[in-house]
Amino acid sequence: MIQKFQHIIQKEIQKFSAELYITPAELYEPIRYMLSIGGKRIRPLFVLMSCNLFGGKTKDAIPSALAIELFHNFTLIHDDIMDNATLRRNNLTVHSKWNNNIAILSGDVMMIQAYQSIAESKLLSRIFDSVLSVFNQMAIKICEGQQLDLNYEQERKISIPQYYKMIELKTAVLLASCMKIGSLTGGATKEDANNLYEFGKNIGMAFQLQDDLLDVYGDTEKFGKQKGGDIIANKKTFLLCKAQELCSSNRSMNKEMERWLNVHPDNKKDAHKKIKAVTCIFDSVNIRKITEKEIIFFHQRAVNLLEKVSAPAKKKKFLIEFTAGLLRRET
Amino acid sequence: MIQKFQHIIQKEIQKFSAELYITPAELYEPIRYMLSIGGKRIRPLFVLMSCNLFGGKTKDAIPSALAIELFHNFTLIHDDIMDNATLRRNNLTVHSKWNNNIAILSGDVMMIQAYQSIAESKLLSRIFDSVLSVFNQMAIKICEGQQLDLNYEQERKISIPQYYKMIELKTAVLLASCMKIGSLTGGATKEDANNLYEFGKNIGMAFQLQDDLLDVYGDTEKFGKQKGGDIIANKKTFLLCKAQELCSSNRSMNKEMERWLNVHPDNKKDAHKKIKAVTCIFDSVNIRKITEKEIIFFHQRAVNLLEKVSAPAKKKKFLIEFTAGLLRRET
Repeated sequence: MIQKFQHIIQKEIQKFSAELYITPAELYEPIRYMLSIGGKRIRPLFVLMSCNLFGGKTKDAIPSALAIELFHNFTLIHDDIMDNATLRRNNLTVHSKWNNNIAILSGDVMMIQAYQSIAESKLLSRIFDSVLSVFNQMAIKICEGQQLDLNYEQERKISIPQYYKMIELKTAVLLASCMKIGSLTGGATKEDANNLYEFGKNIGMAFQLQDDLLDVYGDTEKFGKQKGGDIIANKKTFLLCKAQELCSSNRSMNKEMERWLNVHPDNKKDAHKKIKAVTCIFDSVNIRKITEKEIIFFHQRAVNLLEKVSAPAKKKKFLIEFTAGLLRRET
Repeated sequence: MIQKFQHIIQKEIQKFSAELYITPAELYEPIRYMLSIGGKRIRPLFVLMSCNLFGGKTKDAIPSALAIELFHNFTLIHDDIMDNATLRRNNLTVHSKWNNNIAILSGDVMMIQAYQSIAESKLLSRIFDSVLSVFNQMAIKICEGQQLDLNYEQERKISIPQYYKMIELKTAVLLASCMKIGSLTGGATKEDANNLYEFGKNIGMAFQLQDDLLDVYGDTEKFGKQKGGDIIANKKTFLLCKAQELCSSNRSMNKEMERWLNVHPDNKKDAHKKIKAVTCIFDSVNIRKITEKEIIFFHQRAVNLLEKVSAPAKKKKFLIEFTAGLLRRET
């Protein structure tokens, strides 16, 4: 089923790219480019899976699935400008390949096209209203999450609740909305749709923690990212926030952590030493185990939420195994 | 009626600002700021007026009117980043008052809120679908217009058809969509709504030409803008494009124009001389008269289109007089 859905999504994205206007080229080429450099298309997959959970027709969920993928890619284009990122999925970011103005504007167009895709779904008006409302609230929250992220970059230290709030808005709400939109399209009751929203949120939290963990403890080859990139960048990850919390009462460890946080992200000379030293602090407070436990906690909470949902047990089991599989990857 | 509508719009915008979330402040403060520094609210006014033309209820058109104003302000925030503009309506632009990242993100949120406002209009589903579709197409076209504007900035000279295409997309389509959305909400037939779209487009073209004209020949005090700003900036206006066309066969005038276009916008020393000299070229090819004729041409075309529309003659007459009044201002 996964492969079938993935194939459908791939085809839809290709169709979208092929039908895209050509001029002004500066506007549409970046959109085509962004969609061509891939990504795992997990989000539209979740839309189709949750629609299927309630026996809905896949074709009804396709416009929303595409809309979510377009919206997600729009946020990536704009976030990359704000984060000054040069690479995305091992390719140049849009603003690096073209320029900031083109990245702002083609991102804007991509967001409008997301709405256009939603509008093209021929859903019954009651369901359409709900889907559009979930989409709008999701969109606002993701922007709020990005703003928190920008704010927290300026801070030396943020608390675990602050960290959780940020990733909930920036990452988890998107998966939550995929599940809710898919299930509403599939004909779920409001209660089931809300439970699936919470399911997606918890899965999203688990995914983000997993991402944080893989940066330090992942298998570089399989993960496809430079190990320790977050450490070099002083990125606010669960590992860093939790380690700072755990070190706070230990003066010497605290000082050691502070010392390495003072090594500037652009300081390439000390980067390797920094990764090693910060990982050593992480090890000493047992951060890997703590993070793994937290991931299991979020996944378990998701499983419990899914149990409450009225859908065929076989399909629910499949969804749990699929998400567990995604969480097992490459550690 | 105008005053009543203006009062309603002002109240709605104030309500929107008051109900806006507070945190993250970096995200919502710029939105409140942008709405507080005003503007003439011509666009929402046109939505309400065209709804009224068909006897529709004003309250039905308010969400779309607000959506249009939000969308318009979102484009201004992002355009100001791209154009590197420091001032807007005599106040600091959002990216100058805060920074580029905040301007990108609060602009994004403002666009989402425009969609949220459209979604909240409790229109019958058939009308809602049409309104959303007009809004989406408008949104895309405005972005295309901005991209053309950015492209043309790099060119020495653009043709009149290129200029017209750009202002149609960047400016006129917005007024056209105001008219179409308002009239659909008011219960107009598809044909009438399309004629009003074309009416709005022609009025929009006339407004833009008027703006171009006022920059050179306007009464500074009444117009509230520095005279000759477009000349200093080498902005592609109707006056410049037409004058370049008319000078093209006259080698010495052509050379003179080229010479002044070579004076960089940042060159403050020669700015005054540049305005005087370029205005002198404009005068010598009679650009004021030509532009005024063109404005009348677009306005007349709008009037002819409105005549075809099935609506009370009194209301149509009022609309024509109102737009004529706006075009008469301050020259």
